[in-house]
Amino acid sequence: MTEHSTATELVGRLVAGDRRALARAISRVENADPDLPGIMSALASRTGRARVVGLTGAPGVGKSTTTDALTRALRAQGHSVAVLAVDPSSPFSGGALLGDRIRMQEHAGDRQVYIRSMASRGHLGGLSWAAPHALRVLDAAGFDVILVETVGVGQAEVEIARHADTTLVLSAPGMGDGVQAAKAGVLEVADLLVVNKADREGAHATIRELRQMVSQGSREEQDWKPRIVSLVAARGEGVDELVDRITEHERYLRDSGMLHRRRRQRAREEIEAIALAGLRTRLGALWDGAQRQAMLDKLADQVATGGTDPYTAADTLLAELS
Amino acid sequence: MTEHSTATELVGRLVAGDRRALARAISRVENADPDLPGIMSALASRTGRARVVGLTGAPGVGKSTTTDALTRALRAQGHSVAVLAVDPSSPFSGGALLGDRIRMQEHAGDRQVYIRSMASRGHLGGLSWAAPHALRVLDAAGFDVILVETVGVGQAEVEIARHADTTLVLSAPGMGDGVQAAKAGVLEVADLLVVNKADREGAHATIRELRQMVSQGSREEQDWKPRIVSLVAARGEGVDELVDRITEHERYLRDSGMLHRRRRQRAREEIEAIALAGLRTRLGALWDGAQRQAMLDKLADQVATGGTDPYTAADTLLAELS
Repeated sequence: MTEHSTATELVGRLVAGDRRALARAISRVENADPDLPGIMSALASRTGRARVVGLTGAPGVGKSTTTDALTRALRAQGHSVAVLAVDPSSPFSGGALLGDRIRMQEHAGDRQVYIRSMASRGHLGGLSWAAPHALRVLDAAGFDVILVETVGVGQAEVEIARHADTTLVLSAPGMGDGVQAAKAGVLEVADLLVVNKADREGAHATIRELRQMVSQGSREEQDWKPRIVSLVAARGEGVDELVDRITEHERYLRDSGMLHRRRRQRAREEIEAIALAGLRTRLGALWDGAQRQAMLDKLADQVATGGTDPYTAADTLLAELS
Repeated sequence: MTEHSTATELVGRLVAGDRRALARAISRVENADPDLPGIMSALASRTGRARVVGLTGAPGVGKSTTTDALTRALRAQGHSVAVLAVDPSSPFSGGALLGDRIRMQEHAGDRQVYIRSMASRGHLGGLSWAAPHALRVLDAAGFDVILVETVGVGQAEVEIARHADTTLVLSAPGMGDGVQAAKAGVLEVADLLVVNKADREGAHATIRELRQMVSQGSREEQDWKPRIVSLVAARGEGVDELVDRITEHERYLRDSGMLHRRRRQRAREEIEAIALAGLRTRLGALWDGAQRQAMLDKLADQVATGGTDPYTAADTLLAELS
């Protein structure tokens, strides 16, 4: 069996609803399998249908609880739901899978819900590949809505939000000053600002603060002001309003032509990232020559001992390549 | 004044001990100033002398307390100390500077101590540049020891550890299972395993666990087993032993030739990263052409609507470039 027919076969099975094929395809994304181009090619005509909703926010604001509540509400409306929990802070896989199984228990037997954690491997560049590829796979598998939830913290949050059609930025009362600062940073990617644990003391202050930030903020899309939604995800309070707001944003995206513009921009970035990786591979191939390895070693020695700086060394190397 | 002479002048001043010039040079690193190649070139002959010690570990284990305790102990031995606190999880600068000033108060008037926080900007690639460049600047400024402390969490921890000669991985008793897993992940970069808050309940269990991990772990350098050091950084207990262990590791690095090998490897990675960025710029320049912009837009449209996959699109684009 050729590699290509394997990819086609795998895609055929996942499109037909085979969950094991789906799990395998995402594992191949996670492991940066050499077969990925074949899989993505076989998937392409099946993509572009799913709605992608991103959930981000500092640890402790209740991202998974909100994801779970949203999953239930969307299922109640008859939508199939995939949850992709991306942990950009961990280069290690496997650990989160136990969590997946626990979270799946509620939906055991419901084939219209699929929950999957994905680690993005050690390499920093890995992140920019893994999430959009996994979204393609879940999209092709036919899910109506994909909830992308970030695990962990950091700038990667913002990265992942960029893959979503609608981005929810979660906060919670009493998370301290650091969170307030973080809010300011993610505000520009937020389509909806969700204040979870809104039954806690300080909720009004948080909402007031967010409202002020929204009024001062400048967004690319001037015609959409991020809505603020109060939530008590653990008790399901406010979830229906949240779903309505998500639907409202979806309508705005479609009506304004923004949905296509966003998706095209994401596709551009994906293509550029892959093209760049292609160049990197070429560069790597050039460096495999023993002569060039020796040259790089020599340059590295010079840099390590202060004989030259890394920029001059890189110039020397690039001059050699062209 | 030409840009080059500005870089030379700035470096001249920072090498002479001008702390404002030093602060400005690091800000230029942080802001990816176009002048960086000039600065790095002017610095080169002054680098390679400082010892770089990295401190990493989950939030709450006491990284800053340990850094402060180490700073005091190293000063007591007559070494000059620079502290670089890198926050890879935050694309925002400025906030940490208040913290710097508070931490500096203890050493006010001591010109042999310099403390600086650095945010790594929004771009993921920024990380790989900022830390090694800032280390070069501090090295050229003449500090005997540079303590690199990571703020925040995640895989970036491991990245930053790679820039250090000696990497300290901190843990603390009672940090839960997640931390235990993280320990396993960072074990391969740890030269010294520091159990802070060793007066707390559970310290023995943590030490036992780490000991077991060390005995099972496989490291590149077979002849150095990560030492486990108990510490109560807040009271200064165990700090002298920690300094001794760091010195012991330094001796090992020098005697085994490992110090040069590690630094050469780091220089290789720096050169490759800069060369790759150079290629990326070239690629960007090629894409600036209106014709190619139109082509990329067309390809992105096709990918966004499922007409093709990003790999095929990237191939088409690269074929156009060569």
